[in-house]
Amino acid sequence: MDLHGKNIIGGKAVASANAKTFSAFNATTGDKLSPHFFEATFAEADEALKLAEKAFEEYRALPPERIAEFLNKCAEEILKLGGDLIERANLETALPEQRLIGECSRTVNQLKMFAEIVREGSWLEATIDRAIPDRKPQPKPDLRRMLIPLGPVVVFGASNFPLAYSVAGGDTASTLAAGCPVIVKAHPAHPGTSEMVARAILAAAEATKIPNGVFSMVHGANEISLHLVRHPATKAVGFTGSLQGGRALFDAAATRPEPIPVYAEMGSTNPVFILPNALKKNGNAIAEGLLQSVTMGVGQFCVNPGLVFGRKDENWRAFIERAGQLANAVAPGVMLHKGIHERFEKGTQQFQKISGVSVAGKSSAEVKERASAIVFATDAKTFQQQTALSEEVFGPSTVLVSCGSTEELEQIARGLHGQLTATIHGTDEDLVQHKNLIAILRQKAGRLVFNQFPTGVEVCASMQHGGPYPATTDSRTTSVGAYAIKRFARPVCFQNFPSAALPPELQNKNSRNLWRLVDNQLTKADV
Amino acid sequence: MDLHGKNIIGGKAVASANAKTFSAFNATTGDKLSPHFFEATFAEADEALKLAEKAFEEYRALPPERIAEFLNKCAEEILKLGGDLIERANLETALPEQRLIGECSRTVNQLKMFAEIVREGSWLEATIDRAIPDRKPQPKPDLRRMLIPLGPVVVFGASNFPLAYSVAGGDTASTLAAGCPVIVKAHPAHPGTSEMVARAILAAAEATKIPNGVFSMVHGANEISLHLVRHPATKAVGFTGSLQGGRALFDAAATRPEPIPVYAEMGSTNPVFILPNALKKNGNAIAEGLLQSVTMGVGQFCVNPGLVFGRKDENWRAFIERAGQLANAVAPGVMLHKGIHERFEKGTQQFQKISGVSVAGKSSAEVKERASAIVFATDAKTFQQQTALSEEVFGPSTVLVSCGSTEELEQIARGLHGQLTATIHGTDEDLVQHKNLIAILRQKAGRLVFNQFPTGVEVCASMQHGGPYPATTDSRTTSVGAYAIKRFARPVCFQNFPSAALPPELQNKNSRNLWRLVDNQLTKADV
Repeated sequence: MDLHGKNIIGGKAVASANAKTFSAFNATTGDKLSPHFFEATFAEADEALKLAEKAFEEYRALPPERIAEFLNKCAEEILKLGGDLIERANLETALPEQRLIGECSRTVNQLKMFAEIVREGSWLEATIDRAIPDRKPQPKPDLRRMLIPLGPVVVFGASNFPLAYSVAGGDTASTLAAGCPVIVKAHPAHPGTSEMVARAILAAAEATKIPNGVFSMVHGANEISLHLVRHPATKAVGFTGSLQGGRALFDAAATRPEPIPVYAEMGSTNPVFILPNALKKNGNAIAEGLLQSVTMGVGQFCVNPGLVFGRKDENWRAFIERAGQLANAVAPGVMLHKGIHERFEKGTQQFQKISGVSVAGKSSAEVKERASAIVFATDAKTFQQQTALSEEVFGPSTVLVSCGSTEELEQIARGLHGQLTATIHGTDEDLVQHKNLIAILRQKAGRLVFNQFPTGVEVCASMQHGGPYPATTDSRTTSVGAYAIKRFARPVCFQNFPSAALPPELQNKNSRNLWRLVDNQLTKADV
Repeated sequence: MDLHGKNIIGGKAVASANAKTFSAFNATTGDKLSPHFFEATFAEADEALKLAEKAFEEYRALPPERIAEFLNKCAEEILKLGGDLIERANLETALPEQRLIGECSRTVNQLKMFAEIVREGSWLEATIDRAIPDRKPQPKPDLRRMLIPLGPVVVFGASNFPLAYSVAGGDTASTLAAGCPVIVKAHPAHPGTSEMVARAILAAAEATKIPNGVFSMVHGANEISLHLVRHPATKAVGFTGSLQGGRALFDAAATRPEPIPVYAEMGSTNPVFILPNALKKNGNAIAEGLLQSVTMGVGQFCVNPGLVFGRKDENWRAFIERAGQLANAVAPGVMLHKGIHERFEKGTQQFQKISGVSVAGKSSAEVKERASAIVFATDAKTFQQQTALSEEVFGPSTVLVSCGSTEELEQIARGLHGQLTATIHGTDEDLVQHKNLIAILRQKAGRLVFNQFPTGVEVCASMQHGGPYPATTDSRTTSVGAYAIKRFARPVCFQNFPSAALPPELQNKNSRNLWRLVDNQLTKADV
């Protein structure tokens, strides 16, 4: 595919004559990649939202089969990009081919999963209460409720998942599935990958006769991001990235005349608690699992375990030593882009300057422009006094914190920020002895992991990828898995409508064979 | 019951020696009522939240039967207040006895409904995906997800429902049902009613051994309200009241270091569209229904119909005339408090000054200190030019807007703010001819009413009491009905936990007989 570098607005490639331009870079060599990319102007962004608003009227009225067909076709068109897509993504992100092939397959599966959710339809929460005309003192009216789409959604591509959380990623798939048009703000670190995927979506939209404006993609920086979020036609925002970036979008949305929801997944430190019996029994295996989790993908996962807590005993000392040795052996890796690498270097250098923090191990083969794996060690007191140690450092590092007692572990858990995940390694005996700790962690995280590691986010109905602030701006929702679709819908209730005038989902005959709550009973029966 | 006028914090009646005091007033005569009420100090509010935070650890771990028992006991204790409660509420609000008896019964039924929801348990969205250890390329882990409570919630009592949306109203009942402690900020217009209900809740908490701090109630004004919302222990806010008040709380919550959800229901103009065939067939009956809805409870409902649109023809002219005559015959009513009455007078006087707006009818017997019913009439052009006409005037008035065509009705519908409700009166033929209009209104409102009126909000699973901003700050939720409980919970996922270490709801054996989504199938079977 020849890249044109333009914005894609309502099915057309668009670039203003006086647009700012920027380049993609080869993440490994630092060389510029062709072509130039054109940032969208405010007028172009406005046009995308105008078209989205118009397209919404038609799109939300389409039968669910049509939306499912569109999503499945998106999957098909992305697969068709084949090796070209993987090659470009590899150039722009330095992520290895195998990882990108896996991520592409996840992207395609997400689209198909949402297609199936839309087709099946029970996500709409169809709820019916029949009239009781002779109820005293007041008759009960017929009431029927279901979810409807919110309207145009702005989605920000994530740098660390150039496929699965970018242009056709989970946010886009769940938005389109809910019946909402989407305007993607492409991540500037992989604009070529973004264009390829955007053009695949366009081809799918064309083939399945989806209205123009249901999908647009713009390039640009902070000003255009804020402009999109502040636009009155925008009804929700999806974002995966830094705390600073996510909070800026949240603040812009909250200060609009009409505030809108922002679903910002901003990462976390994903604490790991290694309990005494597990440490004794499996210390080495846990150290190996941990290092693999910390350094996988050069540590560039939102669920990368950045903090590890254990009770100081001989097994813990051996664990620190083993983790350090394992870090020594890790080959330095190329990070997604220069900015991320610089921030990682800055963050880890800051840790090294803290008195009471030591380096237990570090990639022994240092390579310029590559990120070394680092394992830090510190004690509970230093950890609690130095708040910087609680902040996420995005990359292949982790901090091992030695604690004195179960009570200290609990105290530390209570002091943690909100987290995407919290992990416990323990035996059954440990679990019984640390019930309090687990009860505390439950209030701190979106996902609790037992005897595994948090990296590797399964896409399914039970997944919760979210958590209390600052992990996300909305802990009530998930950005991964089936429930993600609910973020882009709201309930509407119909009172006393004749069955024929209701949406098919709420009519007496349950023609879609949905699970519906009828007079407080879940059923697939007709009314 | 002898009222003490104090704040109720962790089971104790508390008043600071240097607290500001205020009085309740007889809403009908304007006379002061005894006793004095004591505003909470910041330190007292902090103490309430400290106790709530502590109590939360115990409360959230209680078996659901215990919470259900507590809610049922609250209902019982409120009923026990009997005529004393109705008498005090009648003094403080001027709402008639019969209405208050009905409202008390609604309050009690809400508590019982939530008790049943907690006991039944399917609201927790228990979702299970079983492991597939031999899946390629990666094994699938065991994942199990359910909702857990957010933490302490601050609830603001509403002035217009001194029982059903005040101290033990829908927000409090759904908060406690979700497993969250609550701090109620009592509405200053009915502090005596508030104290009586708060003491009934305390008695219920004591009788059912609910931890101290699960319920507190404070008196106070704006500063204490903002202080409660900004407190780090507060995890969500429930509010019913004015746009100005709701937005101030929303802004305070959004600018916290850790933003929290605010569920503010701020009312709306609840537009009514009367379509031509219905007008021809039932004009007089619709006028009678409308006037009853507009003037019921002296117009003091969030779902009071404040705007009525019709197509200008002879039937519409007759309708305006009839509505005007009906208004003439309405006896002026005492409003909830002086402030509300003053705002109503100011709002209706402003409308009368607008050129192009006429008074079609007004209570002919004017009585000082009482609110006259008023029906205004205007044309579509004036309505669209004068934005004040789109703002809610809380009280017994409505504006009839003459439109020229179906297209003009649609254009007006597109321009509407977000609404709690939108109402259509029509024949089956009208419905077919106005499909576009209904499709537009669906995006504007939380509830669409057909051939009935929006006043009278049924408490059941299908009810949606919410809508796009400015009707509420969170259109994804409802403040009335079963789904209200979901506002105070968030999902948590357990990965790879042994069944015995999971909450009962997620264990293999489905001991609570919940509906659970297991491997994407809804079932009550064990795993």
